[in-house]
This record gives sequence, C-alpha cells and structure tokens, in this order.
Amino acid sequence: MDLTEHRVDGRELFKGHFLHALCDQVRLPDGHVAEREYVVHPGAVMVVPLLERAGGVLEVVLERQYRYPVQRTLIEFPAGKLDAGESPLDCARRELREETGYTARQWARAGLLHPVVAYSTEVIEIWFARELRGGARQLDEGEFLEVFSATPAQLHDWCRSGAVTDAKTLVGALWLHNVLGGAWTLDWRADSDT
Amino acid sequence: MDLTEHRVDGRELFKGHFLHALCDQVRLPDGHVAEREYVVHPGAVMVVPLLERAGGVLEVVLERQYRYPVQRTLIEFPAGKLDAGESPLDCARRELREETGYTARQWARAGLLHPVVAYSTEVIEIWFARELRGGARQLDEGEFLEVFSATPAQLHDWCRSGAVTDAKTLVGALWLHNVLGGAWTLDWRADSDT
Repeated sequence: MDLTEHRVDGRELFKGHFLHALCDQVRLPDGHVAEREYVVHPGAVMVVPLLERAGGVLEVVLERQYRYPVQRTLIEFPAGKLDAGESPLDCARRELREETGYTARQWARAGLLHPVVAYSTEVIEIWFARELRGGARQLDEGEFLEVFSATPAQLHDWCRSGAVTDAKTLVGALWLHNVLGGAWTLDWRADSDT
Repeated sequence: MDLTEHRVDGRELFKGHFLHALCDQVRLPDGHVAEREYVVHPGAVMVVPLLERAGGVLEVVLERQYRYPVQRTLIEFPAGKLDAGESPLDCARRELREETGYTARQWARAGLLHPVVAYSTEVIEIWFARELRGGARQLDEGEFLEVFSATPAQLHDWCRSGAVTDAKTLVGALWLHNVLGGAWTLDWRADSDT
C-alpha cells in the first residue's frame, strides 16, 4: 500500500526568530484532504566525541545544558543546526570546536535520525570524532553549557536510570554501545582540514 | 554552575489545530534576557510490544506510517499523544489497541525521552507490553498505517543500516537490546484492566 501524502496547497502559519511553521493541505491515500502543521528546520548534526585518556581509558565528551522547553538541565552530546550552505561534516567540526574546544583528526558518519516525525522536518546526522585535541571554546552569546566527560559505561547506565533523556543522545548511546562492542562498524576518515 | 533560565514574561506565538507555540522571555545565568520560542505538547507514549510466536520466537510489533514533515514512510513503534487527563499507561493501552488491535496482559514502564529539547515541551514515556492478544484496529479518521512484526535482530540491523531513523523507535531499540540481553531489567505488572 502506498501511504504517501501529496501536497495540494499550503500556507505559512508563523515565522518567528527561531520557529518557522507551515500548514499544508495534503491528499491522503483514500483521496480525502487533510491539514499538516509542521515546523521547518534546517537540519542538524550531533557529534559523539571519543576521548582517549592516559592509560587507554576511553571517555566521551558530553555537555550539560539547560533546555527551557522541558525546564531541565540535560546531558547531551554536542550538536547544532546547519548554517545555510554548510555541509554536515563542516557543521560537526564547527559545533565540536565552538561548544567544547576540541578538534578531531578523524571523523566517521554513523547515520541519521528524525527527532520528531509528527511535526518537524528536522533531521540530525550522527558523526563520531576521535583523536581529539583540546582548544578554546567559542560559545555563542547567550549560550551557557558545561563540558565534561564520562566513560561509555557511565553514559550507558545514565540512559537506563533516566539521567539521560535527550533522544539524540540516547540514539548516540545506541551507536556507541554497538560500535565499541564491535557489532556495528564505522568508516573512519582522516580530517582533510587538520 | 546553575544553568537555569527563569521566565520573565511570555506570549502566544501561534495556536493552530495541532501546533501551539509560545515565546517566553527568560533571564539567562548572566542576567541578560533572551527569547525562547517553543511548541507546547501534551506528552506522548511509545509502546514496545513483544509478540511471542509459536516455537518461542520473539518478535516486536511495528508500524509503517507516512510522515509528511520528513516526506518518508517510516518504521516506528506504536505511539500517540496523551488525551486530556489520561494517564500514560491508559494512553499506552489505547494507542496499542487502536493502532494495532493488540491488548497486553503485562506492562512495564521503561523510561522517558525528550525528542526535541530545543523547541518542544514534548516528553514520551516508554512502555513495554507482552502477552499480547490480537483484536480489531480502530484507526482515527485520516490515519493510515500498516502493522507488521519483526525479530529484534532485524530491528537492530535496520537501526544500523538507516532503515529506521525515527528517534523514539531508535531509543526503543536501545531499551529492547539491553532488556533482551539482560543488562537492563523491567518491572512487569499484570494489567489490572484485563
């Protein structure tokens, strides 16, 4: 069965400084017409940064950030929206450097996730970064976040206990667990810019 | 460091049939005031339904649904929004029955996820269901979705390959993998309504 909904017409619902919402009329599989209200999003990137500590101990770089819509300080992997015309890898490099100060010598693209399929066009590319070198952060004005690191085992336990509830970070933990366990493989590439 | 942002003032941005958006002025940790635009959502529930096939083979019940904002037919666990005053477990029972026809004799609450922390209040409770009995679906008008089942190994492989990109379903796969592997435990309860 073809479940596709085809656009018939549309209008702008709202355009704020951040949110941009549309309402489209769509033709359903049975021929009826329905409305679909959704947020237009430029897309984003999340980075799972692997930090090799002295003695061979592996950690991941994480952030604590207050998220006003959910009224909580959340634990998250570094992430951010694509700038206009920016490639996902360029965005990954930029967000990692701006938010954490780290640059990576190797990158691997893991996959995609759609955070909210009912009402946003947003898609997040998942990248892994390794061979990190520390540097200075460059936070945007009005951006407040703490950077810290944890072992994969700690992160995994926080996913179970409810200390991590951010969907993209939980998906990052799924990838991390399977990559470190050898079940899923990554195609690592040297960063051509470093 | 306290990263909390405190509400100073607010206004409604938009109220559609489905989307409801607010813009609040908030005081940042450094004392400056910034704006936060976000969607207000009633909350939702996702169900990971375990289906015991003849011969002891375990499968999970999944859906294929066209998601207009991302212009794709996606593979998802059953899920839906809370009705006003509805408990998460009642919502889980209702959505499972309406979308798939199944009722469950046992339920276990796994955890929470926040799908889109930057611009929505939405929180999704994750429930597991087992000892399923089939029945008739009761789809909402204009709701088109296909129900099918797959083994946990198939689902896990689809998460790796990119055949599954819906964030809540990827998080459900994280829970499923760890529960079946024995690393994470669930507190199963008999359904008092069945």
